[in-house]
Amino acid sequence: MCWAGGFPKRGPVATVRDVNAESYRVHLQESDIPTHWYNIVPDLPVPPPPPLNPGTKEPLAPEDLAAIFPMGLIAQEASAERWIEIPEPVRELYKLWRPSPLIRAHRLERALGTNARIYYKYEGASPVGSHKTNSAVAQAYYNAQAGVKKLVTETGAGQWGSALAFATEAFGLECEVYQVRSTYDSKPYRHVLMETFGATVYPSPSDRTNAGRALQERFPDTPGSLGMAISEAVEVAATSEGVNYSLGSVLNHVLLHQTVIGLEAIKQLKLFGEQLPDQLYGCAGGGSNLGGIALPFLRENLEGRGNTEITACEPAAAPSLTQGEYRYDFGDTSGMTPLLKMYTLGADFVPDPVHAGGLRYHGMAPIMSHVYHEGMMKAIAVKQREAFEAGIIFAKAEGIVPASESNHAIAGALRAAREAAEAGTSPVILIGVSGSGQLDLPAYAEYLNGTMLDA
Amino acid sequence: MCWAGGFPKRGPVATVRDVNAESYRVHLQESDIPTHWYNIVPDLPVPPPPPLNPGTKEPLAPEDLAAIFPMGLIAQEASAERWIEIPEPVRELYKLWRPSPLIRAHRLERALGTNARIYYKYEGASPVGSHKTNSAVAQAYYNAQAGVKKLVTETGAGQWGSALAFATEAFGLECEVYQVRSTYDSKPYRHVLMETFGATVYPSPSDRTNAGRALQERFPDTPGSLGMAISEAVEVAATSEGVNYSLGSVLNHVLLHQTVIGLEAIKQLKLFGEQLPDQLYGCAGGGSNLGGIALPFLRENLEGRGNTEITACEPAAAPSLTQGEYRYDFGDTSGMTPLLKMYTLGADFVPDPVHAGGLRYHGMAPIMSHVYHEGMMKAIAVKQREAFEAGIIFAKAEGIVPASESNHAIAGALRAAREAAEAGTSPVILIGVSGSGQLDLPAYAEYLNGTMLDA
Repeated sequence: MCWAGGFPKRGPVATVRDVNAESYRVHLQESDIPTHWYNIVPDLPVPPPPPLNPGTKEPLAPEDLAAIFPMGLIAQEASAERWIEIPEPVRELYKLWRPSPLIRAHRLERALGTNARIYYKYEGASPVGSHKTNSAVAQAYYNAQAGVKKLVTETGAGQWGSALAFATEAFGLECEVYQVRSTYDSKPYRHVLMETFGATVYPSPSDRTNAGRALQERFPDTPGSLGMAISEAVEVAATSEGVNYSLGSVLNHVLLHQTVIGLEAIKQLKLFGEQLPDQLYGCAGGGSNLGGIALPFLRENLEGRGNTEITACEPAAAPSLTQGEYRYDFGDTSGMTPLLKMYTLGADFVPDPVHAGGLRYHGMAPIMSHVYHEGMMKAIAVKQREAFEAGIIFAKAEGIVPASESNHAIAGALRAAREAAEAGTSPVILIGVSGSGQLDLPAYAEYLNGTMLDA
Repeated sequence: MCWAGGFPKRGPVATVRDVNAESYRVHLQESDIPTHWYNIVPDLPVPPPPPLNPGTKEPLAPEDLAAIFPMGLIAQEASAERWIEIPEPVRELYKLWRPSPLIRAHRLERALGTNARIYYKYEGASPVGSHKTNSAVAQAYYNAQAGVKKLVTETGAGQWGSALAFATEAFGLECEVYQVRSTYDSKPYRHVLMETFGATVYPSPSDRTNAGRALQERFPDTPGSLGMAISEAVEVAATSEGVNYSLGSVLNHVLLHQTVIGLEAIKQLKLFGEQLPDQLYGCAGGGSNLGGIALPFLRENLEGRGNTEITACEPAAAPSLTQGEYRYDFGDTSGMTPLLKMYTLGADFVPDPVHAGGLRYHGMAPIMSHVYHEGMMKAIAVKQREAFEAGIIFAKAEGIVPASESNHAIAGALRAAREAAEAGTSPVILIGVSGSGQLDLPAYAEYLNGTMLDA
């Protein structure tokens, strides 16, 4: 048939019959964007330990957070509701990039010689190229509703800072970002991206805050850490009128916003004719991307509809789940945040500067820590050379250079696919590819020119 | 309604009824990827002047090109067929990113306060982030079919080089790229991207070729140019066994491959309930992106179905259409290519190094030159500050940082939208957004910090 600019006879729009075993991707429509976020807390057999007030060591009261968060987010942080409605202005912004694609990795499967059916949920086509925007627009919205004028935050590799820069601009707020100094210097494109959206960015620790000056004195020449940058941002928010703080991971409300990822993926797998996946791999830093893709599948497990093995893939250089302790710890280096029960490497942990792969936080989100502690999730640590080797195999096959962070999840999935090839099995594997690596190319250069240490 | 992970009642897949005036994007399905490329040559009222053999000044014979191109592409270069079938392996690769989205720029419209309905066709989600991949995979395919082992090419900003690096890897070919020295140095992420896909990249002019050495002697300390890099790549291909040359724009077969952009856009506009657009803006360098989006709409004009005003948007720093001469000229600086009838600034043109916006070629594709000469297309020149100002307005509204090149088309469309607001009209405007600007952030930094000259 000569396709001559008109419509094929079956009509202009695809039906489910168009999606089959040879298909690469399923596009949902805007009307398929979830109307509600999923909160797993009421579904957990054992409730997660509450955050504590660092002074009284009593469970945190909502008002303890009111100096830095708006009530809309504080309510979500402690919510016992399973489904929380997504406000229409947030859903409207989601339409700029959601539903995100779920892609069958046919070419990766062939490159690996596996009978596993590999799918990946790709968040890299969002504004700024990562999943972070899912929570950024929600947080900016609730703060704008509360009359806040400015949000202050920290960022490591820069995904969160650029997501919040976009989101604050969309809701008419100012944005101030404290970026871990080592990535501010080594990945300069990231702060230009934030500045393009109108944000102001400072390398951290800076001399703009008491916390920053104290940290510079305590750790001279430090490359910085997320914990340090959080201390600076929290201090600015807590001491300024009309200014709130915004966190890109770890907290319950951030994981909540990210569940749109997993909710969409469940729908999309069904359109591919799959049931629930046998294995799910997500990269694990603070836990928001991991929770976003995994928690809706964990619900399917808990309700007996699925039996998905969920694996958190963390970097060997910041291995909170596999090497950390499960205890109450601060979210920041200076001890300004509430105490969170989490797997932690200690609040003053600074990853080795040789580590190029993102995911540098010292702790793991309390919900994901609890889920891991209760045996509902596995965890592996991946060294960075294995991660980038996996990322390049993926890029050549799928035409997408993944974010450094995502490479850890891909490495985990590649291990599983190779095991399946050896065992002659054909599991369904789902990978959370949290972002695009176009701004991580200096790390790829390190891998390619052989200077990347195997840490 | 609480969306609880199941399906909405109307069934899992959208129908055309889901797309309405409030929709942001239309996703076509894989089965909607065109099966044929569109060749405008047989539809043109006056045939375009043929390329000439530089020795005899006679029209080029197919065998004149056989030293550097495979017969499959040579046949396309001179084809009189309106529809040329896309080989299945190429169409299979297209599925990694096609159909590309057509997006209604609701938020941009609101930011501009215009009643114009603005749509953009976005090619930035392709492997490597630009439209170039559309032709790269086709060229790699025909060369692989012909038994070629290696492709050599030039690249300016790096989009073409990285597209060909991806495509050659997909078809098992080697890839060698000569990159204009100024962008090799100023945009280092680009060559890392090519290297990630396995290509070898040299800054040009290099000392690896006779052409490069002669150019270094003739123009000491030159920042390089596309014309120079083409000379080097053609020399390598013409003098090596099993090695062919590949060009990322200008030639008929390259424009042909890019017509998938416009063919999809026509379908997608209909799904939005639009007829053909009133105005179309594409950025103009060598002409392949412009031709790719515009030629299918020009066909609609020629056949009386549409009346779209097509505007080529070129940089004021390399204004071949608005400032060049329409004459036969070489495609490269050293005079190794056939003579092409085109609007040209002269084959030894080197854009001012202050120009940050891509689109640096000295000439314009013969087909687009002819179409312009015949009055079927308009052209405007845009200075770079206006281009980047437009790009930032677009980024803040749409959440996509456009490629430097694409900013020129956006600037043209913004002029039109503002005129419409003043005149109280509501035209339908289509913009070709040829790529993502994530690797162009150094140019955005120049604009933001005020060091960008208004050239």
